[in-house]
Amino acid sequence: MKVSVGIDIGGTNTVWGLINEQGQVQVEGSINTREYSKPSDFVAKLALDIKNALLDSTFELVGIGVGAPNGNYFKGTIEYAPNLVWEGIIPLQKMFQAHFNLPIWVTNDANAAAIGEMLFGVAKGMKDFIVVTLGTGLGSGFVVNGEVIYGHDGFAGELGHTIVERNGRTCGCSRKGCLETYASATGIVRTAKERLENYQGKSLLQEQAKISSKIIADCANQGDALALEIFDYTGEQLGFSLANTVAISSPEAIILFGGLANAGALIVDPTQHYMEHYMLNLFQNKVKLLISTVPQHQAAILGAGALAWKNVNGAL
Amino acid sequence: MKVSVGIDIGGTNTVWGLINEQGQVQVEGSINTREYSKPSDFVAKLALDIKNALLDSTFELVGIGVGAPNGNYFKGTIEYAPNLVWEGIIPLQKMFQAHFNLPIWVTNDANAAAIGEMLFGVAKGMKDFIVVTLGTGLGSGFVVNGEVIYGHDGFAGELGHTIVERNGRTCGCSRKGCLETYASATGIVRTAKERLENYQGKSLLQEQAKISSKIIADCANQGDALALEIFDYTGEQLGFSLANTVAISSPEAIILFGGLANAGALIVDPTQHYMEHYMLNLFQNKVKLLISTVPQHQAAILGAGALAWKNVNGAL
Repeated sequence: MKVSVGIDIGGTNTVWGLINEQGQVQVEGSINTREYSKPSDFVAKLALDIKNALLDSTFELVGIGVGAPNGNYFKGTIEYAPNLVWEGIIPLQKMFQAHFNLPIWVTNDANAAAIGEMLFGVAKGMKDFIVVTLGTGLGSGFVVNGEVIYGHDGFAGELGHTIVERNGRTCGCSRKGCLETYASATGIVRTAKERLENYQGKSLLQEQAKISSKIIADCANQGDALALEIFDYTGEQLGFSLANTVAISSPEAIILFGGLANAGALIVDPTQHYMEHYMLNLFQNKVKLLISTVPQHQAAILGAGALAWKNVNGAL
Repeated sequence: MKVSVGIDIGGTNTVWGLINEQGQVQVEGSINTREYSKPSDFVAKLALDIKNALLDSTFELVGIGVGAPNGNYFKGTIEYAPNLVWEGIIPLQKMFQAHFNLPIWVTNDANAAAIGEMLFGVAKGMKDFIVVTLGTGLGSGFVVNGEVIYGHDGFAGELGHTIVERNGRTCGCSRKGCLETYASATGIVRTAKERLENYQGKSLLQEQAKISSKIIADCANQGDALALEIFDYTGEQLGFSLANTVAISSPEAIILFGGLANAGALIVDPTQHYMEHYMLNLFQNKVKLLISTVPQHQAAILGAGALAWKNVNGAL
């Protein structure tokens, strides 16, 4: 059976899988990213594990796809990733080529997720769409005419760092008012904490020892007015930003993925409402707002594996 | 000599030209758009004029490119263009095909301008750039990996209708705070009129019978503080918007064109300053902000002619 290798490098764990052309994970594995202070040791261990998995099988490797924070598609590198222990520019593609005589592609996790949706998920058959990952931060992958927008330098698709409120919340990037400070699993918690400070009414949220996006969703699902208001505000910031984004790339669909997207209608409904509200009439009622259908626990390796499959098979 | 036909349809006048592969206009003509209440009569007259120009020559037509307001590349139509006398959907491509046995492409004026810059202007050799036309409104054409972003429906690239101020100025599109209400030849006049109302100091602008973007530029060039402040504010709104746009498509350059772009450094300098100020550090000091080098009076037909050349020659 022909398979690609999909590797997702995270700050804590790195997971990998052998993915067949139908997007089924055949073998999975993981290693602890932090245990390897030298990236070459990390790659060597990964290569060893993958080769071991191939010993007793009839798998035929077609290529390797890697999703990594600050992964650069053009250069095959990881560049200055704040959440990884390795500093500077890591020539990941070259390092893998010391172990595999196969084509290897690197991109960031959101772009990999977009390709995963295109090959194996809800964007199958679409040529123009956007994937928005609502996790700790907000990542995005833009697909135009069947191809990911990498931009001039390979770093395109930073929707999380478009500014929705000049002089708004301080962002990890050191600027103010970035979308991801509002619309992400951490952003909605910031909203909750802000609102709770001066809230005069009674809310289930006041009884929680710790606020998380999951807990806010649970309270909203019990009809808690403040929790619902927090989702409404989050949807307004995200919907506003998406309306502006639609005016640029006019996608068929926008696909939400990740922690906050698990809230389902709680986040989709207000986002859709405000997106339509702020959208140019030319685009109104045309853009589908969808939730990813790729299984969340495998999405990262499926996306990375899809990157390899897409390149192996050329334009699909 | 091989030539394409470039046609630019405007609300008042329609200009056309025969364009060789080097981007030189060989023959030019124009007709009054408003004189033709039926678009088929309009196309018949255009076809007649073009065929007449070909009678005494050795020109060989390769294809026809049309730039038109609300021109749809996928359908070859003009759809609900507010500034044209023809209502509804005009099947322009089909109408031309009744007169010419040649490939015909239609797009909007800003996309045509972008292709013109790519083939004949300052974007020669670039694969990722944005053209922003600062005229009565603000138009834009996005090029990614050497191809124009048309989007799912053919209407992508409406940067002028991204919102930079929620609850800002009323726009012709019926919404509020669109970029083009600030950054355009009419937008800067609105800013001037607003500022003049409550201005306590003395300004050359107070002595003008009529305010235009040209007059504001003239006053600014004479060192008028208010006029300079008006350019600074216009540049802030445009630069803010461009910083957000760069985070999405990460272009090599942004090229300004049209009436307001003629102000040169007066508009480029503040725009660049604020673009860098609002930009994610990953993109800082990477994106060139340029003024178009295509001759303004021929830019529209050169862009339309370039659309035909690009399609005839395939990926360049």
